[in-house]
Amino acid sequence: MTQKKIPDIIIGRLPLYLRALHRMAASGATVTSSQELGGWVGISAAQIRKDISQFGEFGKQGTGYNIEFLKEKLREILKVDRVWDVAIIGMGDIGHGLARYQGFLDRGFRVALAFDNTSEKIGTKIGNLLIQDITKIVDAINEADIKVAMIAVPADNAQEVADQLAKTGVKAILCYAPICINVPEGVRVQYIDPATHLQWMTYYL
Amino acid sequence: MTQKKIPDIIIGRLPLYLRALHRMAASGATVTSSQELGGWVGISAAQIRKDISQFGEFGKQGTGYNIEFLKEKLREILKVDRVWDVAIIGMGDIGHGLARYQGFLDRGFRVALAFDNTSEKIGTKIGNLLIQDITKIVDAINEADIKVAMIAVPADNAQEVADQLAKTGVKAILCYAPICINVPEGVRVQYIDPATHLQWMTYYL
Repeated sequence: MTQKKIPDIIIGRLPLYLRALHRMAASGATVTSSQELGGWVGISAAQIRKDISQFGEFGKQGTGYNIEFLKEKLREILKVDRVWDVAIIGMGDIGHGLARYQGFLDRGFRVALAFDNTSEKIGTKIGNLLIQDITKIVDAINEADIKVAMIAVPADNAQEVADQLAKTGVKAILCYAPICINVPEGVRVQYIDPATHLQWMTYYL
Repeated sequence: MTQKKIPDIIIGRLPLYLRALHRMAASGATVTSSQELGGWVGISAAQIRKDISQFGEFGKQGTGYNIEFLKEKLREILKVDRVWDVAIIGMGDIGHGLARYQGFLDRGFRVALAFDNTSEKIGTKIGNLLIQDITKIVDAINEADIKVAMIAVPADNAQEVADQLAKTGVKAILCYAPICINVPEGVRVQYIDPATHLQWMTYYL
């Protein structure tokens, strides 16, 4: 892997390539081309070749990409050739769904901690996952050395949770609350808010 | 509203501005500035002024933006000054959570139809929302004249659902299945997949 700075937008496409390669491999394929991969992800073959070549020469002119090899390379580059423990804060519908979601583990993530602030939920379990009191969040996350968190609390509580996470080693936050949160430098945030996606599309209707 | 072609990336930021203005208004504010709005959404004041000026002169030098006025203008531009009926396909954890989500209505959307393929779910209700047999999807969506749908089925079924939606008037799809779907020209798709967001961030850890 080179040390040069790769544009963030390219990094953002790699998980899509990896996801498609997983499905190709699951269907029994062993070799693919930038054309075929492009068809799976809706991105041009030229763009895919350019993106992947940022990280080295992983394909051969004429024979294409070895799926297993490219998959392993992308997992290394994205640092998901290991499993990251993740904390979920807020165990309403979204947090509950994330805790039960089966799709994280083979993509590099394991929900290890869950927090809520309601006494009915604290102490209960989702599968093997114990819902803990949100007042314990800083100590529990630090003790578990967790770097990745998902915020699934209402908008009014999200900044407060982000402020608590700032006292931990969490460096990557996926925020489901429909609000932009302020985080310290060095912490990355991405957002999931279905209504903003829908509004983006209704413009064109 | 002008007829010139506005870059899609600008359209994508408008829902964030609108969301922030909603919260500002809810907190009792009546006037804001591009600086303040920028602080709420993590975008520079200059960018915000540039984005908004694409659609007309909505602010005054020195006095800033009237929140209620700008909110109404953005709602008009994004066409969420009305309520769009939405269909959800797949009533697992995600579909169920979306059906119960309280945040859609004041942002322009109402979940009107829900579909699943399991006999235990078909005929049951979530609040007032009846879960219908997925085999009825084309007729039901056409009859209700629905333009917006959310796909929340497993990856293996998503393309099949997309193919059914292609026989309806649906022109905007929010896809929660971790797969890229093929849709006819003129249909827009956006994707929500938490693992791709997380993998995008672990690259930087």
